Amino acid sequence: MNLWFTEDHSPYARFSFRVEEHLYTATSEFQKIDVFQTTEFGRILTLDGYVMVTEKDEFIYHDMIVHVPMATNPSIQKVLVIGAGDGGTVRELTRYPSIKKIDMVEIDEQVVKVCQEFLPQTAAQLTDPRVTLYFEDGLKFVRQQENAYDLIIVDSTDPFGPGEGLFTKEFYGNCYKALNEQGILVNQHESPFYAEDARGMQRAHKSIMGFFPVSKVYQAHIPTYPSGHWLFGLASKKYDPIEDLDSDAWNALGLQTKYYNTKLHVGSFALPNYVKELLIHAK
Amino acid sequence: MNLWFTEDHSPYARFSFRVEEHLYTATSEFQKIDVFQTTEFGRILTLDGYVMVTEKDEFIYHDMIVHVPMATNPSIQKVLVIGAGDGGTVRELTRYPSIKKIDMVEIDEQVVKVCQEFLPQTAAQLTDPRVTLYFEDGLKFVRQQENAYDLIIVDSTDPFGPGEGLFTKEFYGNCYKALNEQGILVNQHESPFYAEDARGMQRAHKSIMGFFPVSKVYQAHIPTYPSGHWLFGLASKKYDPIEDLDSDAWNALGLQTKYYNTKLHVGSFALPNYVKELLIHAK
Repeated sequence: MNLWFTEDHSPYARFSFRVEEHLYTATSEFQKIDVFQTTEFGRILTLDGYVMVTEKDEFIYHDMIVHVPMATNPSIQKVLVIGAGDGGTVRELTRYPSIKKIDMVEIDEQVVKVCQEFLPQTAAQLTDPRVTLYFEDGLKFVRQQENAYDLIIVDSTDPFGPGEGLFTKEFYGNCYKALNEQGILVNQHESPFYAEDARGMQRAHKSIMGFFPVSKVYQAHIPTYPSGHWLFGLASKKYDPIEDLDSDAWNALGLQTKYYNTKLHVGSFALPNYVKELLIHAK
Repeated sequence: MNLWFTEDHSPYARFSFRVEEHLYTATSEFQKIDVFQTTEFGRILTLDGYVMVTEKDEFIYHDMIVHVPMATNPSIQKVLVIGAGDGGTVRELTRYPSIKKIDMVEIDEQVVKVCQEFLPQTAAQLTDPRVTLYFEDGLKFVRQQENAYDLIIVDSTDPFGPGEGLFTKEFYGNCYKALNEQGILVNQHESPFYAEDARGMQRAHKSIMGFFPVSKVYQAHIPTYPSGHWLFGLASKKYDPIEDLDSDAWNALGLQTKYYNTKLHVGSFALPNYVKELLIHAK
């Protein structure tokens, strides 16, 4: 058998995974959900044909979306996670004993069920007693919150399909309101390399900048996302991710990580000139 | 027409480029040479079916292989380049007025001719009066040099095919001898992500470490190379790429770059934990 799953990274560039077995396929109320067993990347989850998570490289994304804000403010206790149906972001958060409460809002309950069955590597910690799952629209959920969280992580799909509303000004404004005065917002920001992804990144950055006094962008090497060059936005009411990083405090926690370390934390905010230009001209 | 060029990034992962025209194909004494006009990446050069350079992202590789050593020691005057038939490395070197002499040793004259015809973006500066082209085996050339260069850049193909000998201990030992006491060696080091590439990287790192008192590894985001996560080795008899970096001096040169800047220079040496593990266990 010679079966391949192919994703368009741009209209003119494609990435293909050798597939051993198509483990699951269904269409939920919101999107098409598939799980494949691949040879190189272990199991992969796709939504509407786009790769969301692979067992081989998910550690990179989840390290970077969680440990960067947690090392910036180690006293974070109350966290809101939007999206993140695979559970990887929650898994990393539950490693911090200091965290008291994790609310996770995922629009599509079926994604969580599928991940609990097929991707225990990422989904296993969703049963942690500090975690409350809300199966509803993140946009509506966050509208009702005020001064409630130390950290909001927006771990959404791409800015089209069900994730579209999560890249709007209204949404980021509501995130600002939902955060307390120490609040930090982390947003998955797409890639700077392909034109359409870069526009999504510029739109998100511009919208977030309008609300938060601190708004910075950092990067990671994620091989299975388009171009492998992935950006995150860290916005904050008070904390600066470089100046306020307390490396000794984070290292004293003794967390073992395969990608993140506090030197890389600092290095990840040093962006290439072409990315800085995109951010300066964001609209 | 719906024509695609596909490269295997591992036996189980493939990247494909939409092709508008197959501009050139021939087999030289050493390898198969092809040039394609692609929609997303402009013209691309492949050797034996592996992408060497694309017009869209070559700036990243060439910025990082040249400006990192040049900013580490701005008094570099004599440079040896091994491989680099597309001319991009020489193009970046010729931007430094302080450089007096560039010897470029490329085993395959036909690669240079093809790039001069089809890739003027990278090859145009090969006619700079400071540049001397030698069409011979880099391994043999470097054996005959002693105390002759401030900088050697090994811009080779992958460690199989004609580039194979350039990843051996004997070669790096001869590079050490060919450098003067300020000497710096920069080596393209493959990717850490796929198993076979990682083994090439480990072999090169281990061999270089045996000769040079300073031996560090840095990274860049190069979307069209396997995994997009690419490493370079910087080894040196004296200079440390972080401690000896004089950002003010480099910035005073006023060079415009699309990827490199001196903050990114520092950040690029902050490696993920899994890469540091691979380097520690290199054999």
